Amino acid sequence: MKNIMEDEKLSMMNHSCAHLLAQAVKHLYPEAKFWVGPVIEEGFYYDIDLGDNVLTEDDLPKIEKEMKKCSKDNKRIVRHEISKDEALKQFSDDPYKIDLISRMDDNTNISMYTQGDFTDLCRGPHVENTKLLKNFKLLKVSGAYWKGDSKNKMLQRIYGICFETPEELDAYLNELEEAKNRDHRKIGKDLGIFLIDDLVGKGLPMYLPNGYILWNLFENYIRNKEIKRGYKHVLTPPLGNVELYKTSGHLAHYKDSMFPIMQVDDEEFVLRPMNCPHHMVIYGNSLHSYKDLPVRIAEVARDARYETSGSLKGIERVRTFCQNDSHIFCTPEQIEDEFKDVVDLILEVYKDFGIKNYRFELSLRDPEDKEKYYNDEKMWNDAENKIREVLDDLKIDYVEKIGEAAFYGPKLDVQVKPAVGNEYTLSTCQLDFCLPMRFDLTYVDKDGSKKTPVVIHRAILGSIDRFIAFYLEETKGNLPLWCAPTQAIILPINPKYQGEYAKEVYDLLNKNDIRVKLDDRDEKLNYRLREAQISKIPYTIILGDKEKDDNTISYRLYGSDKTSTLSKDSFLKLMNELIESMALENK
Amino acid sequence: MKNIMEDEKLSMMNHSCAHLLAQAVKHLYPEAKFWVGPVIEEGFYYDIDLGDNVLTEDDLPKIEKEMKKCSKDNKRIVRHEISKDEALKQFSDDPYKIDLISRMDDNTNISMYTQGDFTDLCRGPHVENTKLLKNFKLLKVSGAYWKGDSKNKMLQRIYGICFETPEELDAYLNELEEAKNRDHRKIGKDLGIFLIDDLVGKGLPMYLPNGYILWNLFENYIRNKEIKRGYKHVLTPPLGNVELYKTSGHLAHYKDSMFPIMQVDDEEFVLRPMNCPHHMVIYGNSLHSYKDLPVRIAEVARDARYETSGSLKGIERVRTFCQNDSHIFCTPEQIEDEFKDVVDLILEVYKDFGIKNYRFELSLRDPEDKEKYYNDEKMWNDAENKIREVLDDLKIDYVEKIGEAAFYGPKLDVQVKPAVGNEYTLSTCQLDFCLPMRFDLTYVDKDGSKKTPVVIHRAILGSIDRFIAFYLEETKGNLPLWCAPTQAIILPINPKYQGEYAKEVYDLLNKNDIRVKLDDRDEKLNYRLREAQISKIPYTIILGDKEKDDNTISYRLYGSDKTSTLSKDSFLKLMNELIESMALENK
Repeated sequence: MKNIMEDEKLSMMNHSCAHLLAQAVKHLYPEAKFWVGPVIEEGFYYDIDLGDNVLTEDDLPKIEKEMKKCSKDNKRIVRHEISKDEALKQFSDDPYKIDLISRMDDNTNISMYTQGDFTDLCRGPHVENTKLLKNFKLLKVSGAYWKGDSKNKMLQRIYGICFETPEELDAYLNELEEAKNRDHRKIGKDLGIFLIDDLVGKGLPMYLPNGYILWNLFENYIRNKEIKRGYKHVLTPPLGNVELYKTSGHLAHYKDSMFPIMQVDDEEFVLRPMNCPHHMVIYGNSLHSYKDLPVRIAEVARDARYETSGSLKGIERVRTFCQNDSHIFCTPEQIEDEFKDVVDLILEVYKDFGIKNYRFELSLRDPEDKEKYYNDEKMWNDAENKIREVLDDLKIDYVEKIGEAAFYGPKLDVQVKPAVGNEYTLSTCQLDFCLPMRFDLTYVDKDGSKKTPVVIHRAILGSIDRFIAFYLEETKGNLPLWCAPTQAIILPINPKYQGEYAKEVYDLLNKNDIRVKLDDRDEKLNYRLREAQISKIPYTIILGDKEKDDNTISYRLYGSDKTSTLSKDSFLKLMNELIESMALENK
Repeated sequence: MKNIMEDEKLSMMNHSCAHLLAQAVKHLYPEAKFWVGPVIEEGFYYDIDLGDNVLTEDDLPKIEKEMKKCSKDNKRIVRHEISKDEALKQFSDDPYKIDLISRMDDNTNISMYTQGDFTDLCRGPHVENTKLLKNFKLLKVSGAYWKGDSKNKMLQRIYGICFETPEELDAYLNELEEAKNRDHRKIGKDLGIFLIDDLVGKGLPMYLPNGYILWNLFENYIRNKEIKRGYKHVLTPPLGNVELYKTSGHLAHYKDSMFPIMQVDDEEFVLRPMNCPHHMVIYGNSLHSYKDLPVRIAEVARDARYETSGSLKGIERVRTFCQNDSHIFCTPEQIEDEFKDVVDLILEVYKDFGIKNYRFELSLRDPEDKEKYYNDEKMWNDAENKIREVLDDLKIDYVEKIGEAAFYGPKLDVQVKPAVGNEYTLSTCQLDFCLPMRFDLTYVDKDGSKKTPVVIHRAILGSIDRFIAFYLEETKGNLPLWCAPTQAIILPINPKYQGEYAKEVYDLLNKNDIRVKLDDRDEKLNYRLREAQISKIPYTIILGDKEKDDNTISYRLYGSDKTSTLSKDSFLKLMNELIESMALENK
């Protein structure tokens, strides 16, 4: 969606529309006092003190109506300036304005904007008159603590957006509606994928039976791919001794994102924010010869990170999640091959899931910045060149980001543009020269000398949690057959007559590991059909006398009212082929 | 193994042997001061202050030799009594004895035992003379804080055991050796199953690649069994809001076994000691009709419990573990069928794993104890009778334990006698009338009224961690084919000549999902054979020119030097049959 802040004209318009909102609110609630009303990516908002009034979505039409009226009044929006002293005097009964004005420079004039009966303190600029603010919509209302501090009063925050033309506004509102329908929180609820409950805790998702089927399929999918490529899977606990994170450096650099430390007798434990240290200890537990390298330790590993409750979002942003993680321990000579194999795996996985909207970013060090980056000129140059060569060999387009590498090594990120929301890093492959040294890891090289291996941190699906959110939004919940929690539902037209045949078909599919349900309730066919559609089951099998007599299966695909008929064997073959191939489309 | 404390004569003998130990130590270390020397289940120990001396196992033979000498001296062991005042005077230079004497009753005489040049404060009784103490062995030595307090001085604790006959001692030492060889910590290390490292934390096991293969097989095994029986699997986080455990009552009754609370903004979180509350919230998340019951929610769920560091033992007793847990929500009428299904599953699983040494215990309420037990006479009677009927129907022997039920309902435990150590509860099936009420859980009954479901807590494998420990000890690490981390290893006799054929066999087995390794290192066959034996791989495939020419496979079973030869197809068929049937013995 368009970022309003990036368009100068729209930005000004939305800023002016915030004033229009304030003017309308002042008409409706004369006691209203105003804090700030900035432009944001998706329009604008205004924080308003309405005393004890609490607004709901139901109040927005009334305010919109008043805004329309103010707009039609076609008042000029006039700028004038006054001194700080004058401003303090003029707004002496408004603690919010006094707070704003007090923090301004003593010697600068303060600009004010007036439209008809409404004046607001503002840096501007604004559109010329209120008539230009016609194509707006108030989007939602929520509570917001003054200055974001929960010790302060709760203000009412009204969000809105404004465009130049009604067409643009309509297009935006349609996009918004689409995003709502794609929102994994809505789909997740409709399909029974996950549940977040305050009693269990904010940001702590529970996967319901359908969600766990999906989870398990995704986990097995990626694990099997990894096993084929020689990864060795482990299972490590979701917490560790604080000493572990002192050794790794996480406690020094990452503490703000960690859960609080737990004192247990003479030990201190902490939920782990990442699992690299555990894997380092596993590598360090045995001796390694150069002949044993690379060692690829993998785990779908549970981690926990502190996130503010405001930033939590469904299973996209959570406080505990499982990463599809791996650490590859290799010699410097093996970096190229290992990177190549990781990129190859990424491309393979994206193809299987039909992910097309992505791009590669190569983050390199800034060679001038001797302070930030681990100081081994040759190692950096070699590594960076090797990664470039891999990408060129594979004919992959990428952008280089100088100075964006972590201090410990260069990295390759895959940025994905999801159907909803902003681009984000789905997969990553990072070189690390430092962590193996912190853990004193070694291997014995050809010449018998002890050397430090290089570590490659890599994640393909990112966190399983976030990947499920992503994939639900990409598919709108219409999951391809192989991962649909229920793959087929059987509806005998009249359970009295075709009930027995329906059971026979059910047993056949069940025995062949198809996730199938039988709906033989004594309800009208249309009612049962509609329910099957809501739960987005790919195949609805409808069995009447004809199917029973011919020993066939008639079915409809989700979202279609075309019926096809096949023999039972052909149907089973079709299902198995689609599942085996992980086909993205059903047929 | 025999419990010394339960045999009066052996108990006295071991007590006397502790004195013999002390006498010998006093001869060798005249500065030694003695704290206490009690009899324990496995013999005796004595805590001794040796100043700055720290004993090791190497010192034990020397002490044993001196004990033999004291025994041969054949001194009578004589009891006499003195007053507390006299005792305080006599031992005035021994702070340990003073500590003991001070706490004794002022008016009772204190008994002393003397054998030759050694006298010790002791309640007795003792054997008549030291010659009776011939068949003893010192077992180990360790540090032990005075009075178990780490702020006190570290004393030297010497363990030993004494029997009447040399045959008994030999039998015991053999048993001990056998237990050492069966110890899952030793096997776990030899087979690369798990790793516990102080840097990661005491009691926090990490499963290594071989261990994770085992784990995954066990988890899939039990999950598939459960799926077939209509269980629905979920995945919930390993922590929860403290409010959850206030609601469940765990915080009030179970806090001592829980990890410390973590304050996160305005929420308090705690690692969960059990996952019942999460499953209650999942049930409560949707409406249920009597038609939907039973609802069987299952999870291999990670829990964390506080255990003292002294009680930790490998993966048998840990601080975080995964339970093979389930909660069945049913109507009171369904209790019988559900119990029957659980017992049936237990018996099926035990058969698959070859577990034979077990017995059922039915814990019932004490009908007189109105305070402890949830007060619904009829519900208790009905439930207890139903469980009895289930067991009788299945012709299962069981013992009833009156007053051993939890306050919330009767339970059925399966007590297993492992190859090493004491009987313990492997599987459990517990009725719970209370928890569903605490969470306000309901279902709509036939008549439209809201009713409270009953919950059955059940675990079959117990914790996966402990079950792996148990199974490693039962099998001595000779795992049956289906769950052996590596199922076959291929050794070409001379890699130069049969290397290519070996690779062909490897590819064939690998493609057919056999977990196979190829050892074509340039090492002598016998060397490679020995290594294969140490890692207890069930099938060692040895390929020479004959096999290459005939296109066959020759193999040896673990622990046997008999070689069999089969065509490749027959071998693959044999493997698949053994795996499919979960055969306990290879062939």
